[in-house]
Formats: sequence, C-alpha cells, structure tokens
Amino acid sequence: MSVQVENPRPSAVAAVIGLGSMGFGMAQSMKRAGLDVVGYDITKATVDRFVADGGRGAATLKETVQDADIVVSVVVTGAQTEAVLFGSDGIATAMKPGAVFVSSATMDPAIARSLAERLEPLGLHYLDAPISGGTARAAKGELTIMASGSRQAFAAARPALDAMAAKVYELGDAAGIGAAFKMINQLLAGVHIAAACEAISFAAKQGLDLQKVYEVITASAGNSWMFENRIPHVLAGDYTPLSAIEIFVKDLGIVQDMARSERYPVPLVAAALQMYLAASGAGMGRDDDSSLARLYAQLSGVELPGMNKEPQQA
Amino acid sequence: MSVQVENPRPSAVAAVIGLGSMGFGMAQSMKRAGLDVVGYDITKATVDRFVADGGRGAATLKETVQDADIVVSVVVTGAQTEAVLFGSDGIATAMKPGAVFVSSATMDPAIARSLAERLEPLGLHYLDAPISGGTARAAKGELTIMASGSRQAFAAARPALDAMAAKVYELGDAAGIGAAFKMINQLLAGVHIAAACEAISFAAKQGLDLQKVYEVITASAGNSWMFENRIPHVLAGDYTPLSAIEIFVKDLGIVQDMARSERYPVPLVAAALQMYLAASGAGMGRDDDSSLARLYAQLSGVELPGMNKEPQQA
Repeated sequence: MSVQVENPRPSAVAAVIGLGSMGFGMAQSMKRAGLDVVGYDITKATVDRFVADGGRGAATLKETVQDADIVVSVVVTGAQTEAVLFGSDGIATAMKPGAVFVSSATMDPAIARSLAERLEPLGLHYLDAPISGGTARAAKGELTIMASGSRQAFAAARPALDAMAAKVYELGDAAGIGAAFKMINQLLAGVHIAAACEAISFAAKQGLDLQKVYEVITASAGNSWMFENRIPHVLAGDYTPLSAIEIFVKDLGIVQDMARSERYPVPLVAAALQMYLAASGAGMGRDDDSSLARLYAQLSGVELPGMNKEPQQA
Repeated sequence: MSVQVENPRPSAVAAVIGLGSMGFGMAQSMKRAGLDVVGYDITKATVDRFVADGGRGAATLKETVQDADIVVSVVVTGAQTEAVLFGSDGIATAMKPGAVFVSSATMDPAIARSLAERLEPLGLHYLDAPISGGTARAAKGELTIMASGSRQAFAAARPALDAMAAKVYELGDAAGIGAAFKMINQLLAGVHIAAACEAISFAAKQGLDLQKVYEVITASAGNSWMFENRIPHVLAGDYTPLSAIEIFVKDLGIVQDMARSERYPVPLVAAALQMYLAASGAGMGRDDDSSLARLYAQLSGVELPGMNKEPQQA
C-alpha cells in the first residue's frame, strides 16, 4: 500500500483571457484540476461573475498575465489574438520568461505562424491550439484540442491541456499546423450544416415527415456529425445560439481567403458561405447556425417549426 | 414443446430484372432465403453467370416474370424502369394478377407516382423501394430499403424484402414517398463526398499529414459517413469504382431538376454537381466517386497517391 502525501509544489498559475461561453468553462476546468487561475474579460461583469464563482479576477491584461506560467487566450479571431499579444495593452512584454501562450482562436495558419515567430524571440513559447467541442464540453474539461508547437511549448502548457481537454492531438512541431487542421474541420463542418439545412427544408418542401427523415438519414450514408447534431434544433424550432451563423461567416471566410490566395478552388465552401452571408444579412447572424434551415424555408415558401421567431438581439 | 413440420406451401417465385453489382447479390440473398428466383439481364453472359451459380435464368423479360409473385427491378433510372414496365417488351401486361413490382431505382418521386398509377389499374401492386448499402451488403441480404406503397404491395413483397434487407423503412402508403426519402439521402451523400474531396485535397495543399487528417476529422464535428467511407480510397490512391461518379451526375441532376421545378434553391447541390460533371468530362465518369479528390488535386497542383492513374474504360 502506498501512502498519499500532499504535493508540496505550488500549483501552476494559469491566466485565461476571454471568459465567454468557451473561456469561462475552460477556466473552471483548470480551477477544478487544481491550477491557480486568473481570469480576464473586456466585459467587467463577466470577470465579476468569474470571481463570484471562486476565481481570481484581474483589471488589465498585463495584471492578468504577470505571474502566469500559462496564458490561455480564448478570443475569437486572429486579429484579436494579435491585439492581445502585441496591441497597445499587449501582453508580449508582460509575460513571465519561459511562459507559454496557448492560442485557441480559429485563424489562418499564416497568422498563427507569424504570431509564434514574433513571440518566441522574447523568450516565450507559443502553442497553436484551436479548440473544438462546444460550451458543454468546455465546462466539463472535455474539449478536443488540435495543437502544434515546440516541445517546450507543449511541456509548459501540459497542465492546462490536461485540465481542458479529453483529447489533445499533437500535430506537429510548429505553429500553423494546428490552425490548418482546424480550418479543414471548419470547412467540413460549415458545408455540412448548410447541406443539412438545404436537405431538411427540401424534405419539408416534399411534404415528408421530418422526424422520420431524421431517423432514416442518421442511419444512412447521408449522415454527418452536423446533421445529427443540428437538425434537432430545426425540428424543435429552437434557434437559441449554441454556435452562431457569424462563426461560419468568419471561418468559411478564412477558408475562402486561404484558398483564393493559394489558387485552390472551393466551390462548396463558396456556395455555403453565400448562405451564411444571406442568413446574416437577413438578421440571423447571432442565431444558431441551424438558422440556415429557416432561410431556405423562407426562400421557398415552406413551413418549419419556429421559423418566424424573432432573431436574437445584436 | 412444439414439433416443427415442413411448410408444405411452395416457395414464392421472385423475378429479378437487372443482375448488375446490386441485383446479382439481391437475387442470391433471395435464393438463400428459399425463394424460387428467376434472373434476367440484358447482358446474356450475366444471366449465364447467375445460372452457373445455381439460379434460374430467362431469355426475355416476359418469360422472366410470367410465374413471379414478386418482380424486383434493379435497373438504374426511372426511364429504364418505365421501359421495363411499359416498353415494347414491357412486363406490365405479362405479370401474374396480384403480383407486386418492387422498384429499386433512384428516381424523381413524380415518376414513381406515375408508374404506380399506371400499374395499379392492371390489378398489380407497386412498391416504391429504393435501396441503399452497396454491393457487399446486397450480397449479404443486408440492404437498407426506403419503401412506400399500399398495404397490399408491402404484404406481397414481404418475403423479398425480408431476404434482401437488414432494415426496411415503411415510409408511407403511396409510391413517391420512398423515392423522396432516397433523394434527400442522395442530396446529402453527393454533397458530402464533394466536401470530403474538397477538404482532403485542400489539406494536401497545406502540406498536412493526410492520415492524421483522417484520424482527427473522423473523431471531430467535421465528420460525415461519406468522409469516413470514401477518404480511405483517396489515401490508398485506389479509384476502383465501388460507386461511380456518374451515379451522382444522375442523382444530383434529379435533385437539381426537382428543386428547379419546385422553385427551391439548392446552391450546395448545384456546386457539387458541377464538380461531378467536371470529373466526368475529364474522363473519370466510371471511376469511384472519390475521384473528385483527384480532380481537385489536378486543378490545384497538389499531389495525391495514384492521382494520375488511367481512368476506367467506358
């Protein structure tokens, strides 16, 4: 029998920048795993909520990271990530020597490479670590992380990765590779949501029993992870945003820009992106991405449950 | 304890029209289940092969169906189905009174409805019964059948359905509903194959490890049944046709025609169909549908295994 002794080593300090629907859960998961977590958000009320939940808050970006061994950035875009690191209140010059910056935003791989190249000469590590899995899995510490970076970046980030993720893919030794994997996933996810919505509203147009369509398709070769996951929102007429239309306006936009600059044709992405843009233009940008089904229905005179509900406020 | 006695009733006679990759296996499955099966194909050598395998052959369509309680039609298109029933050598006037015609071709639901409406006044039954599952499952009697038709049509077809399918969906009481379900499945399947190919060649363009892409995507939200099933063909560089490009030229063409006549926009189907047409125009029409990956690669200067193999002979 072994005797358990308390680990005398102080726990690592992790800073979380961005306490939105993903970042809040990721911060909670790290606290639960025993890390000393400091949270920051541009919305002060969100920081207060994190403190009320037992976390440590900070008032500025630099204060957030000054003692951190690990900085987890949970902003949305590459441009926001760049501002966090190198903007006027940027943290690149405030982070502890040897600390690691874990970047979870979905971005063009070229931007991820460029940020790492600027950060590493300062004696800091950069882990390109886009996340997948949604709010519920973020809160449970069961995300999937598609990560790439130096051995040192992985080693420094390990306690945070273990706390946040059920599965960490180690995809290569340089920033950009994780981002590229994430873009491939987003390409497919975005096209599949659009295809699912094109199909379910077309089924409604044929007068088919949509519950039966769901049952048959999810057991057939036409199934996708997104069809299975999103079509229940349509059948329930519930467009409460779990992931919003604007996410795919952004992500398919990145894919299209990458592909254009690489002279690679993406006709399916292009067609899907136009539908996300149309949904956003019609006022559904902040609604659930399954709102494309409503758009198809509105365009073609078919009835879906809840299709005329008011969009979320911007 | 009950005593088993041999059933003295003679087994039902089933005619199979079309002994191609699907029909041959379906005929074998029915033989194995104890039905008395008569096979016909326009290629005499195929009938000979069926006879050598222990089946009964026939020389003409009418001879094939004259004693049949069940006629299973395994041709490819609605037009071929119409010719089998109502062409110059058509069987509509040769079938036994009360027999059922089981139609497995993928077709516009309007054609299925029209064929049933013409057949039923002759004292015959029509089961709209598109199939799904591929050659291997056809041979094992494990197809999925998306069926609709009258109660009498289902009852008459039951021994054949039980023999051919692992799962029979009973989707409604009139022809056309099964066909419509199949078109929804084909819409999704065709778009998903195109999306899978657009994504995997884009991943190659990024220089990613494609085996790793397969591993990550099949465990992520970007997965689809088709991505999981078809991308191994691409990774192996093996474009031996399990299902050919021309199948989706046909099926997405049907969806697009239906949608156009119903004033329903299908931008994803339209984009995917253009890629199948391009692959066919480039000489890959009879190759595996995953050949779209080769097309994307050829269009963008990336290397995939086996991408320059000669196409199948037409």
